[in-house]
Amino acid sequence: MTTYHADLAWLPPGRLAADVTITVEDGRIAQVSEGAGGAGAEHLPGLVLPGLANAHSHAFHRALRGRTQHDAGGRGSFWTWREQMYGVAGRLDPDGYLALARATFAEMVLAGITCVGEFHYLHHAPDGHPYDDPNAMGHVLVQAAREAGLRLTLLDTCYLAGGIDRPPDGVQHRFSDGDAEAWAARTEALHTSYADAGDVVVGAAVHSVRAVPADQLGTVAAWAAHHEAPVHAHVSEQPRENDDCRQAYGVTPTRLLHDHGVLGPRTTAVHATHLTDDDIELLGRTGTAVCMCPTTERDLADGVGPAGRVREAGSPVTLGSDSHAVVDLLEEARAVELDERLASRRRGHWSAAALVDAATRAGHVSLGWPDAGLLDAGAPADLVAVRLDSVRTAGGADADALGRVVFAATAADVTDVVVSGQRVVAAGDHLLLGDVGALLSRAVAAVL
Amino acid sequence: MTTYHADLAWLPPGRLAADVTITVEDGRIAQVSEGAGGAGAEHLPGLVLPGLANAHSHAFHRALRGRTQHDAGGRGSFWTWREQMYGVAGRLDPDGYLALARATFAEMVLAGITCVGEFHYLHHAPDGHPYDDPNAMGHVLVQAAREAGLRLTLLDTCYLAGGIDRPPDGVQHRFSDGDAEAWAARTEALHTSYADAGDVVVGAAVHSVRAVPADQLGTVAAWAAHHEAPVHAHVSEQPRENDDCRQAYGVTPTRLLHDHGVLGPRTTAVHATHLTDDDIELLGRTGTAVCMCPTTERDLADGVGPAGRVREAGSPVTLGSDSHAVVDLLEEARAVELDERLASRRRGHWSAAALVDAATRAGHVSLGWPDAGLLDAGAPADLVAVRLDSVRTAGGADADALGRVVFAATAADVTDVVVSGQRVVAAGDHLLLGDVGALLSRAVAAVL
Repeated sequence: MTTYHADLAWLPPGRLAADVTITVEDGRIAQVSEGAGGAGAEHLPGLVLPGLANAHSHAFHRALRGRTQHDAGGRGSFWTWREQMYGVAGRLDPDGYLALARATFAEMVLAGITCVGEFHYLHHAPDGHPYDDPNAMGHVLVQAAREAGLRLTLLDTCYLAGGIDRPPDGVQHRFSDGDAEAWAARTEALHTSYADAGDVVVGAAVHSVRAVPADQLGTVAAWAAHHEAPVHAHVSEQPRENDDCRQAYGVTPTRLLHDHGVLGPRTTAVHATHLTDDDIELLGRTGTAVCMCPTTERDLADGVGPAGRVREAGSPVTLGSDSHAVVDLLEEARAVELDERLASRRRGHWSAAALVDAATRAGHVSLGWPDAGLLDAGAPADLVAVRLDSVRTAGGADADALGRVVFAATAADVTDVVVSGQRVVAAGDHLLLGDVGALLSRAVAAVL
Repeated sequence: MTTYHADLAWLPPGRLAADVTITVEDGRIAQVSEGAGGAGAEHLPGLVLPGLANAHSHAFHRALRGRTQHDAGGRGSFWTWREQMYGVAGRLDPDGYLALARATFAEMVLAGITCVGEFHYLHHAPDGHPYDDPNAMGHVLVQAAREAGLRLTLLDTCYLAGGIDRPPDGVQHRFSDGDAEAWAARTEALHTSYADAGDVVVGAAVHSVRAVPADQLGTVAAWAAHHEAPVHAHVSEQPRENDDCRQAYGVTPTRLLHDHGVLGPRTTAVHATHLTDDDIELLGRTGTAVCMCPTTERDLADGVGPAGRVREAGSPVTLGSDSHAVVDLLEEARAVELDERLASRRRGHWSAAALVDAATRAGHVSLGWPDAGLLDAGAPADLVAVRLDSVRTAGGADADALGRVVFAATAADVTDVVVSGQRVVAAGDHLLLGDVGALLSRAVAAVL
């Protein structure tokens, strides 16, 4: 049994508590008590939050950081960025993928992320043929997460087409299983591999309505329903997807997914930037979550999605660092509110408490960890300490600590991270992997 | 003579150079050479940039960080935020102002800011009467900057009215000198005090067309012209200012300022969020700079200003952290590009190089330091080292270093800061003031 003590902690259903003692047994929180002092306990400094859930990640995109920005002479777009991303995708093998994902996941842990949803579509060898183990690339992601010290939801992604009515092209052959039946067979094997693992959930993803023909969607939905597994899908990140979908099918991507049984409370629509009123109503009514990835949506010039409106319609909102232009879930959290302010010219759409809920509890639920992401008895013992004495977070009353953390702290203010009761980060150092900057440097160099 | 050596440095007019040696004499750069090795020199790690210029600051707003955010139940606005800000303004005396400004300026130095433009309007005692020295509050700002170790442009602000045709109200009595002649007399005394100081420029500011009646504008412009001093003004941050100005004067704020001689190459329009085509043309044609404060403009729900269009029209663009919701000029820099992406749905308005120019050279020019902000012989020896081995900045080729710094580094990645040849920050520690978080904590507590 380990006991941790926090001067300040964020307890369910959403209140700041002082002098909090958290006892851990078998990786779960056994008890949370207040006012008992910290004698004999391991101290966690600053404000202690539940572990953060990064609900949308493409680990290998980390190799692109800073590279797609430096020449702004041209007028780039999402689509030109995608060409650069495909260049990296084409050069990865299992060893390179392992090194890059491990380092990227370790960067996440240092930022307080204790659970990641990896939206994984880089399945096959560069020529499009399966590896000897068709799940070789999936297995290295599991290994990477374990070595980095965080829990993983591996969202094995169905990606069959290069666009609506277009076969896969170039590197996209690495993504495609041919049809959804073949995808389901491969994913079933992956699921079986980790059926008894306590640290991995295998879920499903529909890459997008661009990449999965309508007549294949039901197969993915059925596989996920059979396993009660999470299903994620990129939805309406760019207007062109909406245009193409309407032209081919006569409906929006959201409506198409709904018509084929993809929406529902185990499902997350990622981005959901360009929605119709009907889309918002459908997502909310079905209880489909919406994952906002604001720093990526800024970076790719996607636009500002209707986070407040989907929440009001009934959709839980979660957060993802997606392309890892930056890895900082506090920045993602405040960006949801700040970008809505830019779009609406009003403040106060999201409280700090609501943004923390998106970054913790709601994210975990969407990744198939329904009891994680809160500091309560029975939950996995995932704890994140954010210092309140840095130049960014110092100054002000304890009562405002959550506001300072959500609206001013950065990943650099995360000092200590506990996953399943084990301290993985102490005083900003990754205890399992050491110098994560050096790991990133080597891993990125190997794929450029 | 001191010599610094950088593995990588950003040299004028905008190129990355390796193995750079910078010799310093009497606080200025004597020579910049490449390829000479670093024997005997003090090492600066990572990428070395010229010192950053924070072109728009209200130091005391730092006390509000995190406090105006935590209750989002209501629908706050710029105007409700202003009420909270006035609460702090009402409680400051010279000692409290000194402590708060010193700590805030020290936070800036740790973020690589070596020159700040303080837009100073908190002139008088709480009852509106002048202090025994009517510039007591200005003098403490100079002392604060000196103790924090950065150069200061004190923009002494003319603030006469509570709105168009409205007298000052409440705490606004602390701001007002009665009329622009009285403002000029007081500011003249302040200017004389620092006429021979090498580390302070005294300039002028028009708070806004809300706070300075049209018939008073010419007096401010004439004072600044006489001294060839910078003039800054808040312009069109909120649509309501435009509406009020049109109603009272029949023209936009930009046009009004121009009609009274305020615009020109020594002038900076701060925010310039809601401009007409005519405003943009006027600002550009007169060579008036525009200071964008993107994190504040997000925070206050101002909207996205036309940074790219004003630049194309001929206005230099500079950056400010303004209300200090965050103090991170790298975040301000990328936010200019990223927020334009959100508004336009296109990438590539601003290159990393153009954003660094805004954060360095252009900012210094707008603050009355025309030879600062570049690593060239004759310039003040202000150097900032940003590490390239953190989890945020590691990974990628040297050629992309600027892109990683501008689009992914944070203030926490600034390790070393040299001002006028003297190292003020080493390995992230403030050498003059020690624990700046503790200073902030005490200074904010004293005014809450």
